Order: sequence, then C-alpha cells, then structure tokens
Amino acid sequence: MFKSYNIVCMKQDKEVTIYDIADYLNISAATVSRGLKDHPTINKKTKKKILEAAQKLGYRSNAFASNLRTKQSKTIGVIVPRLNSYFMSTVIAGIESIANEEGYQLIISQSQEDEQKEAANAITLFNSRVDGIMVSLAANTKTTDHFKPFLEKNIPIVYFDRVVETPDSLTISIDNYKAAFEVTQHLIDKGCKRILHLGGNVNRNVYADRLAGYKAALKQAGLPTPDNLVFFSNLSEDAGVEAANYINNLKQKPDAVFSANDTCAAYCMIRLKQLGYKIPGNFLFAGFNNDPISKVVEPNLTTIAYPGYPMGQIAATHLINHLKGIADISSTNSVLLRHELIVRASTQK
Amino acid sequence: MFKSYNIVCMKQDKEVTIYDIADYLNISAATVSRGLKDHPTINKKTKKKILEAAQKLGYRSNAFASNLRTKQSKTIGVIVPRLNSYFMSTVIAGIESIANEEGYQLIISQSQEDEQKEAANAITLFNSRVDGIMVSLAANTKTTDHFKPFLEKNIPIVYFDRVVETPDSLTISIDNYKAAFEVTQHLIDKGCKRILHLGGNVNRNVYADRLAGYKAALKQAGLPTPDNLVFFSNLSEDAGVEAANYINNLKQKPDAVFSANDTCAAYCMIRLKQLGYKIPGNFLFAGFNNDPISKVVEPNLTTIAYPGYPMGQIAATHLINHLKGIADISSTNSVLLRHELIVRASTQK
Repeated sequence: MFKSYNIVCMKQDKEVTIYDIADYLNISAATVSRGLKDHPTINKKTKKKILEAAQKLGYRSNAFASNLRTKQSKTIGVIVPRLNSYFMSTVIAGIESIANEEGYQLIISQSQEDEQKEAANAITLFNSRVDGIMVSLAANTKTTDHFKPFLEKNIPIVYFDRVVETPDSLTISIDNYKAAFEVTQHLIDKGCKRILHLGGNVNRNVYADRLAGYKAALKQAGLPTPDNLVFFSNLSEDAGVEAANYINNLKQKPDAVFSANDTCAAYCMIRLKQLGYKIPGNFLFAGFNNDPISKVVEPNLTTIAYPGYPMGQIAATHLINHLKGIADISSTNSVLLRHELIVRASTQK
Repeated sequence: MFKSYNIVCMKQDKEVTIYDIADYLNISAATVSRGLKDHPTINKKTKKKILEAAQKLGYRSNAFASNLRTKQSKTIGVIVPRLNSYFMSTVIAGIESIANEEGYQLIISQSQEDEQKEAANAITLFNSRVDGIMVSLAANTKTTDHFKPFLEKNIPIVYFDRVVETPDSLTISIDNYKAAFEVTQHLIDKGCKRILHLGGNVNRNVYADRLAGYKAALKQAGLPTPDNLVFFSNLSEDAGVEAANYINNLKQKPDAVFSANDTCAAYCMIRLKQLGYKIPGNFLFAGFNNDPISKVVEPNLTTIAYPGYPMGQIAATHLINHLKGIADISSTNSVLLRHELIVRASTQK
C-alpha cells in the first residue's frame, strides 16, 4: 500500500516554479515573477491571471530561498517549562496573537523543568535560525550559558515570568516581591499573626521574590518568621496535600496560609477541609496566579491576578519591534506588568 | 543607541562557514565537513577538535540550505482553536514531547474559533513548507477547502479532537457518541428521568456526537427528549450561569444535567447553588473532559476522562511515522482513543 502511494507522492511532489506558470499562461517568467511581487509595471488583469494560475498549479512562494537571501527566518523560538500549564498556555496564546498579526511564526518547545532539555532546545532553535527567542526558565536551570550563542550573534532574547537579569536581554515579569508583600499585608490586616508560606524553588526569581516579599511584610509588622512556617515544594496538587498534612501535624498551628501558586493552595485547602478544619474559620488562605480553579474552589481563593495573555503580547511586541528596528530592547532592562490583589471568600473572616 | 547597535550587529552577523573552521584548525574544508557529519574516515580526536572549534566560532549547521536540498523542513504545523484551553495545551504538550524526540519542530497557531483565521494560518503554514499539519477545527468552520493545497502536494494532515472525515486524512478522537451514551446511561441508572443536556456547536463532531449519544441513551430507556431539555451555547463560564438561570425558570425541572464540557457544568452548578438548589440533592450533574476544575468544584464533578496528552503523542507519532515512511496514514481512516467515565460526588444521591 505504502509503495504505490510513494510513487504518486513523488510525481506530485515536484515543486511548481514560476517557469511552469509562465508556460501555462504563455508569458515570460520575468512577468510572472513581477506579477507575484505586485510590481507596478504589470497591469492588474495580468496580475490576476498570474495569481489565479499560481493558485491553480499549487505554486508556493519560495520562503526558504527568500529567507536565505534576507537572512531572516520570520520565526521566533519559545521555550517554556511546561506547555500544559494554565498560565504558560495563556502567555503563549498572547505571544501567538501578536506574532500572527506581524507575520512571524512561533516554534515552541518545553524544557519539562529540566536545564539539559532547555539547553538542547536552545541548540535546536539556534540551528533553525530563529530571529529571536523568548524563554521562561526551567526549575533547575543554574546558568544561562546555553543562550550565549544567541547573544554572540545578536539574536535577541526576551525572558518572561521566570527570568534572569543579564546585561543583554530584556526581562518581562510582574513585581513578585511587591505582590507577595501585598498578599501578606492583607493577611496581617485581617489580624493574622502566624502566616505560613507554601514556597517554590528559590532558584527561580518568581519563588525567591515571593518568599522575600512575604518575609519583608512580616518583618515590617514585627511578626516572627520561624523556619517551620515556610514549606517548600514543587507546588503541585500532591504538594498541596502534603502541606495540609504538615500543617495538621504542627503543634502551633498557623492562622493563615499564603501559597506561591493557586494549585497548591487549592489542594491544601481541600485536604484541610477533609481533616475537619474550617476555611476561613481556622485558616485564612491566599494563592497566586488567579488560575481558573481559584474561582471554583470553596471558599473562593484570594489571589494575585497575574496577567498571562498581556504578558505574552507585550513580550512579543518588544521582540518584534526590536527585529523590525523600531525599538531596541537592549536599551531596556526589564518591563514590569501590573498585578492585582483579588480578595475573595478565603480571607473573609 | 540603536544605530551603533546595528553596526555591531552587522559585523557579528557574518555567518561562520566550514571554511572558517578549516582555516582556524589549518585542515581542509572537506575534513571539517566530514567531521561535522560524524564520517567514519575522520578520527575521534580530529572530530572533537572540529566540534570544539565549531562551537567556539559559533558555527550553525546550515539547516535552511540543507532543507532546500532534502525538501524536508523538519517542521510540523499545528492549528488549534485556542491555545489557552486546558485540553488543547495538554494535547500540544503531548505533540511536542514526541516531535522533540524525533527532531521535528512545531509551528503553532490558533484560529481563535474563526474559519477565516484558520484558512489564513493554513496558507502561512503551507508557504513555510511544513512537512505535515495537525488540525483541530474552529467552531464555525464549514469547509476544509483551505487544506486542499496540502492534500494536492501530499502533505499529510492529521485532524484531532474536532475532526472531519475526509478520504485522505487521519482523524484522532475519542468515541464521543459512546462516551455521552455512557454518561447519560449512568444518570438513568441513578434513577433520573428528565436529563437536561448543555450542548455545544453541532457543526463540530465532538458536540454533535455528544448530543446524539445523549439522545440515543434516552431513547433506549424510553425517556422523552423534549426540545426544552437541550440548552445550546458556547459552553463558557458565562454560558454555565445562563444555563442555571434557564433551569431555574423551567416549570418542569430536570433531575439531572449532562454538560458537554466541565467549565459550563461547574459554573452552572455554582450558580444553581447560589439560587438555593442542592447538588446532587436537586440535580445530579455530569460534565466532560476531566479538566482540573472538575476535581475542585463542590461537589466534585462526574465526568469523562479525555486523554489529551496521549492524544497529542499518538497524533504526532502517526504523522512522523508517515513522514519517515514507516507507516502510511492514508491507509488508516481514524484512530479512537479510550475514554473513561469518572464517577464523583455530583452523581451520588
């Protein structure tokens, strides 16, 4: 079956050229070439005939050869930790909306939270000659040496969400420190005195900054920050359940929990409720991200709105404006987006 | 600022060739070329020197030129309705995991549920000379004429989730009819006699088949299916709230609700609870997809597990095996994945 298919395939695979269109219309190849480029010397009627013939014969503009000439591939590489995360898929949707409008294509890949895979993806994108890349770092990434080849070729890099400060690249994020400070202050304002933090991997700015903002708010309020009031994990569903069990076993219970993401907060709440605790009766609860589950879990979760879609749009706009020579990203160090504290039932005593 | 940057850029943009590596190492270009291709006539030590020099000088394998020769771009195009949907991002994560392993890159785009944008994305992918495409159709897509240029060039098309039967393409989905039949039968088994369906756009197989499966189960049980027991919408959060208001205004209330997705089910439940109804006391509830919110909404939602990640992996494997000549997709019409009814508290009377 496959063999006979291959024969048909080979026959049809012959690429249609401007010479085929010229033969078909009995005009010169130069006229066809100009017609396809909308050259002013070719009249409308002829252009129409050429375009119709091109479509009929299945002509494809030679994007590859043209890219070789212009040295632009009109592609942007994207590396994220995981594609199947609500936040990341929302950012990518925002990136795509701008890239699509501007005629750029997105090549996407996921590091699966692993530095080595991130480095391998970077090499592949480099060899694909992307015009620029947008990166959100893997949990365990220690260096950004694997992005050096891009910098050496002046291929722009935009880091978003999980960023790293470098002299050459643009970073786009929210002020995670300030946002965490505000959440913690909100809990303090509600009268909480023992606030437990569910923290992520502090290799990454987002989790390090949220931890720092939490500590700063406690310090300013003169509240203690004993080590046993911070529970580190990968912030997964399972980690939420573990955190609840940890809280259940603490001799001196917290009166509030601030989680560095909504998933971990929600599953921690659900488990604590199973264990007989009341929320917000026994513990006020706050998360981070404003994921869909934060509006569904009971009680609805107080959280930080992290604008994923506009983040993607802004990151793509900066990168493409740089590629077009409209605005140089190397003159900007970082862009901070607005966040917002959303107060819901989980912190209403 | 930008001008001086451009000068640096031009200088560094000169592409490093095998001749530069040859000069640098004082060996022949032919040796460099063979070394980079891991040719057996070149000894290990020389290969290592060549690779190190290539890395140091910033050599990029000429993927473009090489693609022009082999007529393969090693890229796969993907068109989905929306990237920021839990289900779609999970499928894409599955596709990426296989494509990455097999050395293919993914170019992704979203139709934003619009046929015209889907057609425009198809043209762009066609001109980018992707080796194959994977498509999940927009809500309002009426024809697949915009994919004809691919078929005419024997560029394989795999439809997934929202599919269309064509003689030339492979479709990958679950048996939506059977899954909906099973959900409805489950509600009938629980003693329900007036089951309301929250349906989607029946242009798309997924929603048409779920409606048909629901009707077939009712018919088999000898239960009536009056028109006012089907509520059509776009299955969004807002549609869930509207559906709840619709149910609240029905003179003869249903005793169960089967929604074609989890989002609509969850927001319908939340609104009905606000209106004072008990779930499952007044209405049993079932959804579809097994989205994260189905495990968080109270009561937890009975639903159909729709395996997005394996669907993406299987779709990518079929397409890539076809491209490699290992297995011809044109000999297979459709692939059905296993679904599973997950019974949770929302249908426990």
